[in-house]
Amino acid sequence: MKKLKRSGRLVDMTYFLLQHPHELIPLTHFSERYQSAKSSISEDLVIIKEIFESEGIGMLLTVPGASGGVKFIPSMGEDEARQLVGAVCEKLSISDRILPGGYLYMMDMLGDARFMQEVGRLFSAILSHKKIDAVITVATKGIPLAYAVGQHLDVPVSIVRRDHRVTEGSMVSINYVSGSSKRIQTMTLARRSLSPGSNVFIVDDFMKAGGTVRGMMDLLHEFQAEVAGIGVLVESGEAEERLVDDYLSVARICQLNEREKTILVEPGNVLEYMMTLKEDQS
Amino acid sequence: MKKLKRSGRLVDMTYFLLQHPHELIPLTHFSERYQSAKSSISEDLVIIKEIFESEGIGMLLTVPGASGGVKFIPSMGEDEARQLVGAVCEKLSISDRILPGGYLYMMDMLGDARFMQEVGRLFSAILSHKKIDAVITVATKGIPLAYAVGQHLDVPVSIVRRDHRVTEGSMVSINYVSGSSKRIQTMTLARRSLSPGSNVFIVDDFMKAGGTVRGMMDLLHEFQAEVAGIGVLVESGEAEERLVDDYLSVARICQLNEREKTILVEPGNVLEYMMTLKEDQS
Repeated sequence: MKKLKRSGRLVDMTYFLLQHPHELIPLTHFSERYQSAKSSISEDLVIIKEIFESEGIGMLLTVPGASGGVKFIPSMGEDEARQLVGAVCEKLSISDRILPGGYLYMMDMLGDARFMQEVGRLFSAILSHKKIDAVITVATKGIPLAYAVGQHLDVPVSIVRRDHRVTEGSMVSINYVSGSSKRIQTMTLARRSLSPGSNVFIVDDFMKAGGTVRGMMDLLHEFQAEVAGIGVLVESGEAEERLVDDYLSVARICQLNEREKTILVEPGNVLEYMMTLKEDQS
Repeated sequence: MKKLKRSGRLVDMTYFLLQHPHELIPLTHFSERYQSAKSSISEDLVIIKEIFESEGIGMLLTVPGASGGVKFIPSMGEDEARQLVGAVCEKLSISDRILPGGYLYMMDMLGDARFMQEVGRLFSAILSHKKIDAVITVATKGIPLAYAVGQHLDVPVSIVRRDHRVTEGSMVSINYVSGSSKRIQTMTLARRSLSPGSNVFIVDDFMKAGGTVRGMMDLLHEFQAEVAGIGVLVESGEAEERLVDDYLSVARICQLNEREKTILVEPGNVLEYMMTLKEDQS
């Protein structure tokens, strides 16, 4: 790459850091790339850090020493988080989503890749201080959000399936009871898609009684893996008995009346978690 | 936002543009945000444009006039594309992936969100001049790549399913013949997850005879939608008869010997397509 002035370096470094979250980048990477002194690179990073932090884009951690460098941790400002949670609630409140049987049509939200990225960033902002090695979800509708979280945390995504496919080698299966329908179902994960002992964040699009999430927890146990957290886009507040205690949710359906076509939605607990995090830090 | 100097503006604008691909941003958005003259903003954009284009990050199109602004179109440089295709081939060549029955284990690649993003960017670079309104894929393993393409093109993703789920309202189903196994199967797409008349890019992780892709084409026909293109991560060069002619592929399996545990992989046709595109432009 040809020698760049500060203005050019700032654009290129911003791009590079955003593309490499949670990765330790040695300063020599930048100083060699731009043929610039490390002191100039350090000054560039001060400018980037200031904007990233004031705009809630993320944190820039500098690790000193010979094996040091800089690390970008994606984050989200409080205002942006509130707006996002508000947008999720507003989208969910459209009565048009109510399907026969009281189900909710959500593919318009789940099919919006950029929107899912934002929700993924919100989760990863809350999780940025936790040790997480992998994200797990169950096919099909949890996948978009799981990938958005995996990308921002820079960890792999494992997909649990409800069917048996021969094309993934040795599989681990468990039976679980769906909390709402009380039926016994099977879920399966390819043996080699998750390392034993991993700290895993569980993601799903919707949680009612929590049977599916509970099933994933049992499956993780079979892999000697630890549950590092649980996050769902939407939880139903109408569940009589919940099989899962500690989880993050972006929105909560308080009431759904199929006959009158009304939905009452309120923010989930993500914002509260975010505030607790902030207090812990200060 | 407080008034920013050029250096701060460049970092913030770079971030904003990367987050809003294919969206027309009026210059007033930036001039109001930073309390700066439009002339300064224009100068900032010249700097960003130069770096984005020289580094193969993407193009910055400026639309003049009162309703004008700036638009970021993600792209990929030729060198980066070659490296990426090489990396896909190299990963695929590991003999360890061969499963009983001659299947290939690919979840390690498909589970890497950032890697999928890069492949998605490669596809969207080739597609950036086409009119595409939606991306479609079939559950489960095509989903990560489909979302990566959808995100870079800023269009919604629709997920075709092989099972019948009652939770998505009115569905359109078709029967199709799997090209390899010759069995009749069903695929289903929620009526409201795709607008009639859309120009749709079809994505899948793997294509052998092309039966699944052919099925999606038939399904699109039921939606009065047009096939704007087809892209697969891996194609099998061993298919006797292919049901699909025109498609993009990142890598091609030329030979797979289950007994000797050898895989021969070569680059697919994406790079050729990229070159043709470049010639058309010059």
